[in-house]
Formats: sequence, C-alpha cells, structure tokens
Amino acid sequence: MAEDFAALRWDEPDEHLGGPVLVLLDQTRLPAEEVELACTDVPALVQAIQSLAVRGAPLLGIAGAYGVALAAARGYDVEEAAEHLAGARPTAVNLAYGVRRAADAYRAVLHEGGTQAQASAAALDEARELHAEDARGSARMAEHGLRLLGELATGGGFRLLTHCNTGQLVSGGDGTALAVVLAAHRAGELRRLWVDETRPLLQGARLTAYEAARAGMPYTLLADNAAGSLFAAGEVDAVLIGADRIAADGSTANKVGSYPLAVLARHHGVPFIVVAPTTTVDLDTPDGDAIEIEQRPGSEITEFTAPHTFSSEMSQPGGGVPIAPLGTQAYNPAFDVTPPELITAIVTERGVVSPVTAGELAGLCAQAGNIRSAR
Amino acid sequence: MAEDFAALRWDEPDEHLGGPVLVLLDQTRLPAEEVELACTDVPALVQAIQSLAVRGAPLLGIAGAYGVALAAARGYDVEEAAEHLAGARPTAVNLAYGVRRAADAYRAVLHEGGTQAQASAAALDEARELHAEDARGSARMAEHGLRLLGELATGGGFRLLTHCNTGQLVSGGDGTALAVVLAAHRAGELRRLWVDETRPLLQGARLTAYEAARAGMPYTLLADNAAGSLFAAGEVDAVLIGADRIAADGSTANKVGSYPLAVLARHHGVPFIVVAPTTTVDLDTPDGDAIEIEQRPGSEITEFTAPHTFSSEMSQPGGGVPIAPLGTQAYNPAFDVTPPELITAIVTERGVVSPVTAGELAGLCAQAGNIRSAR
Repeated sequence: MAEDFAALRWDEPDEHLGGPVLVLLDQTRLPAEEVELACTDVPALVQAIQSLAVRGAPLLGIAGAYGVALAAARGYDVEEAAEHLAGARPTAVNLAYGVRRAADAYRAVLHEGGTQAQASAAALDEARELHAEDARGSARMAEHGLRLLGELATGGGFRLLTHCNTGQLVSGGDGTALAVVLAAHRAGELRRLWVDETRPLLQGARLTAYEAARAGMPYTLLADNAAGSLFAAGEVDAVLIGADRIAADGSTANKVGSYPLAVLARHHGVPFIVVAPTTTVDLDTPDGDAIEIEQRPGSEITEFTAPHTFSSEMSQPGGGVPIAPLGTQAYNPAFDVTPPELITAIVTERGVVSPVTAGELAGLCAQAGNIRSAR
Repeated sequence: MAEDFAALRWDEPDEHLGGPVLVLLDQTRLPAEEVELACTDVPALVQAIQSLAVRGAPLLGIAGAYGVALAAARGYDVEEAAEHLAGARPTAVNLAYGVRRAADAYRAVLHEGGTQAQASAAALDEARELHAEDARGSARMAEHGLRLLGELATGGGFRLLTHCNTGQLVSGGDGTALAVVLAAHRAGELRRLWVDETRPLLQGARLTAYEAARAGMPYTLLADNAAGSLFAAGEVDAVLIGADRIAADGSTANKVGSYPLAVLARHHGVPFIVVAPTTTVDLDTPDGDAIEIEQRPGSEITEFTAPHTFSSEMSQPGGGVPIAPLGTQAYNPAFDVTPPELITAIVTERGVVSPVTAGELAGLCAQAGNIRSAR
C-alpha cells in the first residue's frame, strides 16, 4: 500500500473546523473509490463504526481510543462518549479495550489534579501509543506466523486461504492474518492467496483483493461456498483468519463463515490458524457460549448495495437492489464461533499458542500484561 | 404457485411465427419480474440454457427434449440440434438424457419408414411424456422423502436447510428436494425452511425464496457461510439438496456449496439427503473424480449483476457492477462433488438408497429401467 495512505489518521486542521478531527478512509466505498470521512464528534464515529466505514478488530480499538481523545479535545462529556463508543459493536472486544485505555489515561490525569487540557492530551497520547503498539504487534505476529507456517506446511510455497479482511486496512500496521500472508509474499513463499469474497458485505472481494492487488500478491477470489472444492482438490495448505474476540478457552468469534472453514479444514487435515493480538483475548468471557453475537440487518442479505453506493445508509431497507422477494426474513449473524479444538494455533504478538488451551492462553496473556486478566 | 404459471411450455401460436415455440419463464429475472422467453430455434434455447434462464437438472432434460422437437417441427437438422443441445452444459446429465429420448423417438420413426412429420410428432410426444413423467416422479420423491424425514428426525416439525433451487421452477412437477419440503409444509410438518442464498447467482435468494413465499412456507434466507452457525446452534434437522449428476458410486455433483454443507452436516450428526430422479444417475461415470465440473466466468464473482438486469449477457465481463479490483482472477466452479460416505440417503422416484452404495444404486436404476445402464 502506498505510503501516503492510512486507514485512519488524527488531524488538526484550521481553527474553523472547531478542533481536531479523526479522518477515516471510508472502507464501504472501496475498491471503487478512496473517500475520506472526517469525524468531528463521537456520534459520527459511532455511525462510521456501525456502517463498517471503519472496521476490523485492531483498527476499531485504535478508532475507539482516538474517539475518546476527540470527545475530550472538543469538550464533550468523555464518560458518555466512552460508553457510547464501547457499545457501538458488541462483539468487538478491541473496541472496548481501546476506549478504556484512552478513557483511563484521561481519568488518571484528572484524578491527579491535572487540567482538562492535560487530560485531553493524555488521552490522545494513549491513542497514539495504542496505534504504534498495533503496528509493532503486527510485525511480531507476521514473524511468528511465518515461522509457524514453515513448521506446518512444507514444499515450494504456501497456498493460503483467508476470509474477510485482516490487513493494513484494519490495523496501525500490516494487520493480523493478512500480515502473515504479506510476510510470506515478501519472503517469496506465497504460491497463492485464496480470498473468500465474504458475504454479505464482501470484505474479501472489496478489501482483501484490493490489498492483495496493491501488494502484487498472486491471489484468486472465490465465493465462500467454493472453498470446499479447493480443500477437496488439495489446493489449500493452511487457513489464516483474524479474530474479533477470543474467549478464555480459546473459542474464537470471527466473521461469519470462519467456523465452516474450520470444520472443512479439520475434515481435510489442513491447519486452521487464528492470528490476533492478545488484546483480542477476553479472559472475562469463559467460552464460546458467552460471546454475544451481533445480529445485523436482514437487508444486507435481501438487498444488494453496490460498493460505490455503499454509505452509512447501507443497512437501511430500501437502500439497495432487492435480490429476494419483498418481505423475506433473513438470518444475518455478523460472526460465528470456532471452538478451540478446531483451531490448530493462535498466533499473537507474544508468541504462538498450540494446541489451544485455556492454560496456555492465560499464560500468554499474563506475560503480555493483558489488562483484562487483572480487572 | 399459481395455476397459470409454468417454468416451461410448448406453444403453437399463429402461423406467422413460422411454427411452434418453446416458451420459458426467464429465471434470471426473478423475483423482480416474470418475463417469458419464446425460443424459436435451438441456438436461442442453448443460449437460454447457458445463461441459466432455464435451469435445474430435471427441467433441463425436459427443455432438451422439447428442443429436439422444436428443431424437428421447424425443419432444422435434428442430429446437429441434438448434439448442440446435449453439450450446452457439460455437468447436467439430465439434459443429455432428455435430448437423447426425443432424438431416439425421432430416429425410430424415420427408421421404420415414417415421414418427417410423423417423426417430428413422435419427438414432441416423447418430450411431453418426459414432462409428465417428471411431474409423477416429483410426487413420488416427495412421498419417499417425507417418509424418510419422519424416520430420521423426530419432534414437532422439521427445520430443513436447502441450497440452490430445486422446486417447481426446475421441474414438470414440484421438483426434487423442494418437493419434499413442500410435502412437509402441506402436511403441516415444516417448522422452518432455511434457504441458502447460493452464491454467485443467488438461486436461493431469488428462486427458492420466491417459491417458498408463494407456497406460504415459514422460511428464512441466509448467506451460505452462515449455515455453520445454524448447525452449531442445533437449528437444522436435515439438509435436502438436489443433484446435477450422480456417479455410479453415489458421488453427487450439485451446485457449488453443497459439499461444505455435507461436511458440516456430518460434523454435527445431521442427515444430508440428496433428492433426484434416477435419470440423474449416470452409471457410466464411475466416481466423483470422473465428473466433469463446469467452470463458469470469473465475472460472476468479480461483478454483481442485479436480478432485474440479468439477461443472456449476464456472464459477459462488463455487464455488472465491479465488486472487486479490476483484473481480479476468480475461481468459479458451478458444482462440487459430495462423496457417498457423506450422504445419508439418496431419494429417487423409485425409492430410497441408504446407506449409499454402488450396489444399491445400480439395483434401483435397473429397477427403474435406467437407459444409461443398458447403453
């Protein structure tokens, strides 16, 4: 991806805008056009989060932290803003984590008698630190993931299958699962990236294909349901996905369609690898049953909205072209849960957990100083 | 479905059209609009078959037979027409079967010294007989399938999952898998029909939902990759699919996405049932590896064509809205193959094969007088 490009940036434009803004690349409009959204308040950011203009576990955390900094800098009620932001997407643990980090920094300064301006600066510093941490974490996940691939799969180059979008568009760095793919590509070891289109919102077709094309990877797009044929033909060496939330037992909530891939991978003896920062692990969630799954509007299934008309209105009925009879009810969970026994390994910035057990995962999180385990 | 509606009909309009026509409901335009296509020659019918204006294994057989009758009635070269029609879609064994039945009837009359007009009438009679047989076969498959469901699943009403479209739109009667669902609905035993949208061409969203809505079924649409969540939640009592070709060992080629459902069904101990007439069984194809899988244009994946603009041009690049970066390569097999060990039962008009073995299948086909086994 070109250097002049970022999924998200903090900007402090001229006075007349009334303060700093959080600028997002509107991911609902990719790959047709690169349009930036400038959020001047928390409701605008919440709207952007819910419409998936900004998305992906790590980036949501960064956006949440900057959102708190934005509220503080512009003099809004920071507690209210934090609550509003943290609840914008219930399954995304990183979002709440990022919000908490910035809000805690803000509160600490006030608690110690600092000024509002100092507290606001502390929130922004914390958001920037989280942003930088994420970039460093991506680099480490890529390193650990590439080493793991080398151990699991042998032969001339990897044929990797991925779902949804987990690269530079969701991260302060190279991302999670796609950071590993990118590392393999840079090392000359990527034979083929199989990209699930990822219905209903087509993040694979629109975003992962966009990142793969920009990086010059050999990639091929497929309908999600065609993955079975690839496994059957022996064309997949490993599946790499990200995670929106990992429970204490290793159960992983990720984009709907991940679980069927895990079942297929197991059936065919193919490694199924989750790549996520330790901030994605929520030790307060004991297992998969305890993960709340966001149900999204049925209109995402019953209507088609072309990428270049995707907007914050996209989930409003009537915004797209009907592809099912009027009045059709749809089942549209945003995520599904893969149990630990189907996950070959969880790759984090601190190392690899394999086999996936609650004990190993807790140990890694303690090592990482995961703040949730201390809550 | 209303009585005044048919997926296909033979019509003999006023002289000025130059002869009879085969009228097809253009399924690429459903559910937005009901538009009829009148085919006056075989190239038009082949185009309709390849663009999926007419589709579904049994209906393709009927269309193929009427196509031969059309060529004969209008004085075209019947042998050339038969060859052209039989090869229009390589995976669909019923198409070749229907073509052969009508062509054989035509040849037999000529061989016995009959006139061209008599031979032409014989081809039409054979097409009509195949049409009627299909309706009778549907009724028997529904009967056998409903009895099987009663044996496999117990409790108050069935929650059935289906893929693609296998109902009145693909048949001279109620269809195959959807005929069983319809029978369950009529018997008051259908608790829920889960309808896979069936990417890339959305036959589930457009056609099965259309049929379910018209029949007043309780149905819910889902992205194909959300089926995993339903299985995990214990919301599926059985999977029912049709077949485009069944090899001698029971390996079943059906719409891409069927095989992943079979793997999920096995993982969750849910019955996976194939419903197809014995004409779908090709005893000359020994196993799944021998089934030729049609690869369709990548533009079906990289572009979205809204239903109301679907046309015979739909598979031409540039006909839809791009949903992936320009130049993206796609993998787009029309079908996948489910091996017999993952199929709980094959339901035919002659009875049920379960477990699925080559011997049982051959026995049933012999009983049915399957002409391929005698070839």
